[in-house]
Amino acid sequence: MRALDDAIAELARFNDDPEAGGITREVYTPTYATALEWVADRMRGAGLETRLDAVGNLFGRWEGSEPGAPVVITGSHVDTTLNAGAYDGVLGVLGAIEAVRALRERGVAARRSIDVVAWAGEEPRFGTGCVGSRAAAGELERADLDRLVDRDGTSMAGALSEAGFDPDRLADARIDPAGVHALVELHIEQGIVLETHGEQVGVVTAIAAPHDFRLTFRGAATHAGATPMGLRRDALAGAAEAMVALERAARESPSGTTVGTVGVLRARPGAINVVPGEVELDVDVRDSDLAAREQVVQAIVVAAREIGERRGLEVEVTPIVEDVPVTCDPGVVAAAQEACRELDLSLRLMTSGAYHDAMIMGRRVPVGMIFVPSAGGVSHHPDEYTPPEDLERGVQVLAGTLSRLAA
Amino acid sequence: MRALDDAIAELARFNDDPEAGGITREVYTPTYATALEWVADRMRGAGLETRLDAVGNLFGRWEGSEPGAPVVITGSHVDTTLNAGAYDGVLGVLGAIEAVRALRERGVAARRSIDVVAWAGEEPRFGTGCVGSRAAAGELERADLDRLVDRDGTSMAGALSEAGFDPDRLADARIDPAGVHALVELHIEQGIVLETHGEQVGVVTAIAAPHDFRLTFRGAATHAGATPMGLRRDALAGAAEAMVALERAARESPSGTTVGTVGVLRARPGAINVVPGEVELDVDVRDSDLAAREQVVQAIVVAAREIGERRGLEVEVTPIVEDVPVTCDPGVVAAAQEACRELDLSLRLMTSGAYHDAMIMGRRVPVGMIFVPSAGGVSHHPDEYTPPEDLERGVQVLAGTLSRLAA
Repeated sequence: MRALDDAIAELARFNDDPEAGGITREVYTPTYATALEWVADRMRGAGLETRLDAVGNLFGRWEGSEPGAPVVITGSHVDTTLNAGAYDGVLGVLGAIEAVRALRERGVAARRSIDVVAWAGEEPRFGTGCVGSRAAAGELERADLDRLVDRDGTSMAGALSEAGFDPDRLADARIDPAGVHALVELHIEQGIVLETHGEQVGVVTAIAAPHDFRLTFRGAATHAGATPMGLRRDALAGAAEAMVALERAARESPSGTTVGTVGVLRARPGAINVVPGEVELDVDVRDSDLAAREQVVQAIVVAAREIGERRGLEVEVTPIVEDVPVTCDPGVVAAAQEACRELDLSLRLMTSGAYHDAMIMGRRVPVGMIFVPSAGGVSHHPDEYTPPEDLERGVQVLAGTLSRLAA
Repeated sequence: MRALDDAIAELARFNDDPEAGGITREVYTPTYATALEWVADRMRGAGLETRLDAVGNLFGRWEGSEPGAPVVITGSHVDTTLNAGAYDGVLGVLGAIEAVRALRERGVAARRSIDVVAWAGEEPRFGTGCVGSRAAAGELERADLDRLVDRDGTSMAGALSEAGFDPDRLADARIDPAGVHALVELHIEQGIVLETHGEQVGVVTAIAAPHDFRLTFRGAATHAGATPMGLRRDALAGAAEAMVALERAARESPSGTTVGTVGVLRARPGAINVVPGEVELDVDVRDSDLAAREQVVQAIVVAAREIGERRGLEVEVTPIVEDVPVTCDPGVVAAAQEACRELDLSLRLMTSGAYHDAMIMGRRVPVGMIFVPSAGGVSHHPDEYTPPEDLERGVQVLAGTLSRLAA
């Protein structure tokens, strides 16, 4: 499996900002296009027949013995965030090529065709992630391509045109769910659950989805020395209390799997001798259990309003994003479990906290995911790492899963 | 007293950034120098004899009948923070000129000389505030003038030279405490205590001093979706708990007058889908009661360390500044109280939470302060405001206080 490790290193050289130490390869850039061409070459080298769809999703097909049967899709993405690591997404594409190559070499005869896919734009260059799989799922409208813009103001439609695609042919990228038997995505965990529990492979039973919103607390920016404690309307003190309530609400979630995070906090005016008059918290709540997630969101909002009331703070709730979690298909989960057992690997049934193209497609077709450990849970960072033996295990489990699903 | 209101408006025109809506007039800038020349003219117009000392403190003397007797000093400052209001400091200088003018016109014959002063650099252009009064108190060394730099990297020594002063003559600015009978500073409250209690004048009995420090919490910046609540080392969740403990410690202070504030919070990396790995809190704790203040600081640090221990966060405490509070002189307080009674004004004996040049000088000579209300407690902001009738009361109380102290 040296081959996979080498391939990951080779792909890492397609990089718009090597000086930063990590990898920057955003979708629809010239660097992305040459990287994708390299991936297509590699697909063809493994005997796959390649094609690019209307939004730049790259498919490599291993034709099954029954070409009319619904196909099995496997893959992930090869675009990155800014200054990212080498494994996120990439493993699911290059690993899928290796899995199919291994099946062929082993002489497995698949009844169903297997499509290896590199979805376009899983990372949110245009604010919204998973644009390639959203297009395939029929979740993007032509107007969205003009509405979605990157940090430089380039629209997705403009970026598509520049990359040689016709935004008006968006609908051609749609995949008919009836033609898909199952989809399975191999990915690094991006967390420390497997590492913490010393397990080799994660078989995902559900993909959590976020409900993101902003809480704004408005009080009075008064002098830190001249305003007695009893006369303050301290927006940050209120926000602190709300963060404690948020953490408690997530911990006490009925599902036991809800996570709640304040990743961004802005306190204004931001001077050591001024009581903060305005604080924004960007809140992310996720769960694979939608009802539990919404119960936690509700508890947070109620607590924030009660805190605001009590402290004389104005509290505003602004929606950011609200996605629907996906339950993995029992058939795909069972196939992955059997593959692990056959290989005598320790496995953990787990939820994916991060979201993936498989979540988008999972709303239309049966999906599943396979996780391998991430060292220290580090992801979206140059230090992202998974040792070669873990990569190999992931590919073997994927091969075993695919052979079952395609049989 | 229209004269004072007009004078404040006239001085406000010396402004380096009028477009911002407020007043920007930092010490040692050309704009500050012309403003100070305008103040000197006004002093001379009121019959005062002016002189500038070695660091730019401007004095206007009304010679008493006994020139050898220790003098009475009154004044404040006319430099501002960025985009500030028109009253902070300015009232104490222009109001003192009006108070002396009123005493002269009333035919009061002062035994002691009265020095009206505009201290240089009360606002912290060079990081440390009150540089003019610190120089007068003998608290600055020549080396400090090189060490103290502004946001553009200009040292105080460089700024002095550019403004035509010789930094090597720093020691000439020193005032012999034996030559000072008392110092009294008129100032806007910068808080809402007077407004809240509906009182007209504040007579300050003590000036609180800050103990400022930075608390840094270090955890692990992991994926907000992929890291279960039980496996997090969330630096912001820990900081939130510490802020709640800080507020409680300040509220439960044995003195009843301690205030505790987190004015600055930095959470890194600052992405909605990443658990914050590092958070800095800039903490300001103040009291006129030094023991109570230190007890609160201690309680905050102990709580932060306990929270860090429990959550697996590294906690670091970095000193910023630690100043000693000042108790006002009973004689000055009594003079101000008598002046209020004579004028039939409602007064409040109170602590100054903000710090002032009077605090610096108060370590060497008997000091006192007189407060007038600040509308909404707003200060260091274009909306800073005190109505003309309150300004007038402040000047009348100052005049009454000065006539008693100089008698």
